[in-house]
Amino acid sequence: MNEKELQTRLSQIRVLALDVDGVLTDGGIWWGPDGEEWKRFCFADIMGLSLARRAGLIVGLISGEDSPLVDRYAAKLSIPFVAKRCRDKAAALRDLASSSGVALSAICYIGDDVNDLSAMEISGVSAAPANAASIVLAQATIIAKHAGGNGAVREIVDSILTAKGLDSREVFARS
Amino acid sequence: MNEKELQTRLSQIRVLALDVDGVLTDGGIWWGPDGEEWKRFCFADIMGLSLARRAGLIVGLISGEDSPLVDRYAAKLSIPFVAKRCRDKAAALRDLASSSGVALSAICYIGDDVNDLSAMEISGVSAAPANAASIVLAQATIIAKHAGGNGAVREIVDSILTAKGLDSREVFARS
Amino acid sequence: MNEKELQTRLSQIRVLALDVDGVLTDGGIWWGPDGEEWKRFCFADIMGLSLARRAGLIVGLISGEDSPLVDRYAAKLSIPFVAKRCRDKAAALRDLASSSGVALSAICYIGDDVNDLSAMEISGVSAAPANAASIVLAQATIIAKHAGGNGAVREIVDSILTAKGLDSREVFARS
Amino acid sequence: MNEKELQTRLSQIRVLALDVDGVLTDGGIWWGPDGEEWKRFCFADIMGLSLARRAGLIVGLISGEDSPLVDRYAAKLSIPFVAKRCRDKAAALRDLASSSGVALSAICYIGDDVNDLSAMEISGVSAAPANAASIVLAQATIIAKHAGGNGAVREIVDSILTAKGLDSREVFARS
Repeated sequence: MNEKELQTRLSQIRVLALDVDGVLTDGGIWWGPDGEEWKRFCFADIMGLSLARRAGLIVGLISGEDSPLVDRYAAKLSIPFVAKRCRDKAAALRDLASSSGVALSAICYIGDDVNDLSAMEISGVSAAPANAASIVLAQATIIAKHAGGNGAVREIVDSILTAKGLDSREVFARS
Repeated sequence: MNEKELQTRLSQIRVLALDVDGVLTDGGIWWGPDGEEWKRFCFADIMGLSLARRAGLIVGLISGEDSPLVDRYAAKLSIPFVAKRCRDKAAALRDLASSSGVALSAICYIGDDVNDLSAMEISGVSAAPANAASIVLAQATIIAKHAGGNGAVREIVDSILTAKGLDSREVFARS
Repeated sequence: MNEKELQTRLSQIRVLALDVDGVLTDGGIWWGPDGEEWKRFCFADIMGLSLARRAGLIVGLISGEDSPLVDRYAAKLSIPFVAKRCRDKAAALRDLASSSGVALSAICYIGDDVNDLSAMEISGVSAAPANAASIVLAQATIIAKHAGGNGAVREIVDSILTAKGLDSREVFARS
Repeated sequence: MNEKELQTRLSQIRVLALDVDGVLTDGGIWWGPDGEEWKRFCFADIMGLSLARRAGLIVGLISGEDSPLVDRYAAKLSIPFVAKRCRDKAAALRDLASSSGVALSAICYIGDDVNDLSAMEISGVSAAPANAASIVLAQATIIAKHAGGNGAVREIVDSILTAKGLDSREVFARS
């Protein structure tokens, strides 16, 4: 895809679908002695999703894991679509397309590992954090300069807003 | 702003105003299974704020979040001014200027995201960590070499002390 | 070893033996006030071990520490062989070779510190994360581009699969 | 100091004195909602101190903070000398020299911030992690390639062992 086509596609994105571990987190999983499990999210991405919502984008989370943290993240950011313990991410993405009434070509999917490939290849734009698995880096339409959990999602949101001719400061000022 | 003007402005700074997440922290937020929330601060910045206080600077925290960790940080470091859940950071900065009796031109504000821009543009000197959002990097007077939560604040404090002709070791020796 | 011989050896690997701290973790140990101990694993490596298992490799953990987190990790990933509090890693590796019925020449061992050297030198292929101790980097057959706990294990698994002529997406689709 | 003199001094080191935060840790401090405080140490440095002890070096911790984690770290690694809440690190270092019967010229001190300078300047060899404060980097005899809490201490121990003509694998084999 050449740069002009990419910009056109980005300008048409209406849904942002995201894997969670390695995309919204740094891919790490902290374990404690009694089975506790912690993950690290970041504010740059939280602001990115807030900007996406203010710009009218629908956000969805499609995770292969079954963690309560995904629900908590979705609740905190008013994310309407959540799929967990997902074995077939392409099917989950089609559900999201169907429930939101948005064509797959207007969906941007961000993933970082082999189980994201099926969803990535049916999305209008696929993107990956800088530190995604090599097989994912080889397929993604866009590779972010930032790593997962460290601004990769924000960077992709910024790219979508820019392609739409939107200024993030003006978007932030919207209620 | 040329280097000479920057040095002059830095030498006149009397208040250091700081965003918290992404500036005093690395922007990360660790979440546990029961809703716990952890953040990471660093000792380089803690020492930086201690040096700033010993050099006579007034420090203020202006956060968009509403976290008890901000109050705890302020208490630990004897920071007199704290604004939380702040929607209008320029207004909070004007409050800080007013309550401290210091002109905005003698305030250095360090921020990392779009909600910091309004405060940054009315400050005498605005600064950003190396990993701030791109729109912030484009506006900041100074971009630190260090990332947020990893010495960015300390680096800016060092720059202010140097511009004032102060040696940090001598400042540290003050009570 | 030249590249052709390395590829031949990688293609013959049937067992993947791993040190834990610094290999599957980032080498960090988080300590809390009441003696709690946390470690950070990552999903890229978890997926790597899942791919290894689907490709028919036997995985074993050989740790010098005595942490319940090692057992938990092994249980989560159905890893059949675990040695903890291991003072003689070469002996543990021979046990693994014996119990799995696989020759040492068909074992790949990944380690990061001086106590891994004895196991590394009797393995068919030895590998180290990018940030291993210098004495380990000097001996390893392969040095990963990724650091420990940040995809080093996944990268080595990818290399083994590639040498075997396997595509990781196809391997992932296996039950 | 030229390289030859440095090697001579390193070969004569009998005591290794360490600041804790930013040297044995990454300088981070994780805070939880109820006032909990966590720090991150690393196994590369733990192995480094184990090697130092096996090579006959005396290890001491000299911390400006008053954290129970320092005592726990010292207990885990059988470190005989611990100074906490230390305002005058040069005085603490003289205590360590006196109690261990070792001349200051045979002590290597590793520090990362302005409060370490007084101890660094009376030590036979002073060292700093790669990410130490700039004023410390300017004074240290040796600057490690590794950052604090990520192998800086191990790297300095390796340098001392090498200067003494010791092989770390042979040292590790000692009881």
